[in-house]
Amino acid sequence: MILVYDTAVERNPKVLKTCRKYLHWTQRSVFHGELSTAQYRALMAALKTTIDQDYDSIVTYTVRSPDMIETSTIGIDLGGPGDII
Amino acid sequence: MILVYDTAVERNPKVLKTCRKYLHWTQRSVFHGELSTAQYRALMAALKTTIDQDYDSIVTYTVRSPDMIETSTIGIDLGGPGDII
Repeated sequence: MILVYDTAVERNPKVLKTCRKYLHWTQRSVFHGELSTAQYRALMAALKTTIDQDYDSIVTYTVRSPDMIETSTIGIDLGGPGDII
Repeated sequence: MILVYDTAVERNPKVLKTCRKYLHWTQRSVFHGELSTAQYRALMAALKTTIDQDYDSIVTYTVRSPDMIETSTIGIDLGGPGDII
């Protein structure tokens, strides 16, 4: 899955901390990782209590299998080894 | 496809302008859209000349068909209607 967030500055550290527990940092406000359904639900539940749902936004993109998605980088690779999804 | 960018502030306006020609804005530094192979190549070529490849980073995630990817939003929907990919 890929997760992107757009949250108020004061909530960013908590959002980052929660995402880091489950996913790898890709760049700026983007994370990626491979999660079980249970882990995905736990992450979403944690984020729902962290963000202000009237102001913040978190979008996730999920595919069933890592080989269904192709990742490509131009410029530098910020998030380290490309073990995407 | 989903495109995320992390570029120097002074190059952001040009990167934004190029991405907007081909994709829909999702949130912050994230775009999404459905592109032909030719359009994808044109976008990548345009971005390669726009960014500094030693400092900036652009990552794309591509799936073959929109129904291979599931999109989910918590909080507010910043980018408008969810015609993802």
